[in-house]
Amino acid sequence: MTSDDTPTAPARAVRADVRRNRARLLAAARETFQREGAGASLEGVARTAGVGIGTLYRHFPTRQHLLEALLADAYEELAAAARDLMVAPAPGEALMTWLRTFMARVTVFRGLAASAVVSLRDGRPEGAAARRAMCEAGEALFARAQRAGDAPAGAAFADVLWLTGAIAAVTEREPEAAGRLLSLAAAGMVPGRR
Amino acid sequence: MTSDDTPTAPARAVRADVRRNRARLLAAARETFQREGAGASLEGVARTAGVGIGTLYRHFPTRQHLLEALLADAYEELAAAARDLMVAPAPGEALMTWLRTFMARVTVFRGLAASAVVSLRDGRPEGAAARRAMCEAGEALFARAQRAGDAPAGAAFADVLWLTGAIAAVTEREPEAAGRLLSLAAAGMVPGRR
Repeated sequence: MTSDDTPTAPARAVRADVRRNRARLLAAARETFQREGAGASLEGVARTAGVGIGTLYRHFPTRQHLLEALLADAYEELAAAARDLMVAPAPGEALMTWLRTFMARVTVFRGLAASAVVSLRDGRPEGAAARRAMCEAGEALFARAQRAGDAPAGAAFADVLWLTGAIAAVTEREPEAAGRLLSLAAAGMVPGRR
Repeated sequence: MTSDDTPTAPARAVRADVRRNRARLLAAARETFQREGAGASLEGVARTAGVGIGTLYRHFPTRQHLLEALLADAYEELAAAARDLMVAPAPGEALMTWLRTFMARVTVFRGLAASAVVSLRDGRPEGAAARRAMCEAGEALFARAQRAGDAPAGAAFADVLWLTGAIAAVTEREPEAAGRLLSLAAAGMVPGRR
């Protein structure tokens, strides 16, 4: 006996299959992108996942959809990191630590940072919950630094994230430079101008 | 009578033709990229210039070569602007004015800023004289701001330019945001951290 809300055994099997394929595709994409960057062949990703390219496109209509699904994991981790840092003693230093973590997390493979910048600007529905969670937790950390006088009162957290994403995107092949440019943007390029 | 150093009349005609084609290709590229962005069809550029695609590739082996030739003009203008600003009364404000001019000049069409970031990092021979002139003049302006205490003593001008290029590249479709992000990087995202 089945009601409208209770799926039949075959329907449940189909759903389990869909979930399994999605998980396989994400694992394959992570592995492939780490090796070849975000521009790697999607045919190759599907092959590694053991599914057809049609299945990949049913789950992820575009490359950006696939990248945003991977970013959702990053955003969840970053939301948790921001919450942890809320109790760190120095609010400005805590914000800097988080921004460094953000940069490191969105540069785990070539092309991910550029995709993060797009995802944070466009605000698509994919991965929206994780992105919102990260933005809220990061914003709280930023507001705390503002209250402590460590961050500019008039600035918007979205701009801080955008600027940090931009630095990550241009320095992704040079981690040392990434740290240098972030420090420069944190301290200010022309802080003493009158 | 011709010596080895004096080209024959036909050789001179060929050279004039080569120069004319190059000038036509640059004008066509400027026009096409302004309309369609730096990713526009190079076939279309050649067609607008009234030459074959083979001629385009002889002058500019890759799209980046063509973009760097266009950037060379920008760099020469920016070098002149930096020299002019050396006598402006407030060194920090003069540097800011120049950075804003830099951003505006490398965003005259979509994709140019990203190409500028590449050109400033890779330091290819194409357009090297113009790039060097701009970097020297900009560096002098930055050093003056440093001496006035308006810019951080430990920072490198190349990083300032890189950061500004990164902002230009991510905000090229949103000029208001470009100004906001530049101001944020100038004043510092976390200037008060301890």
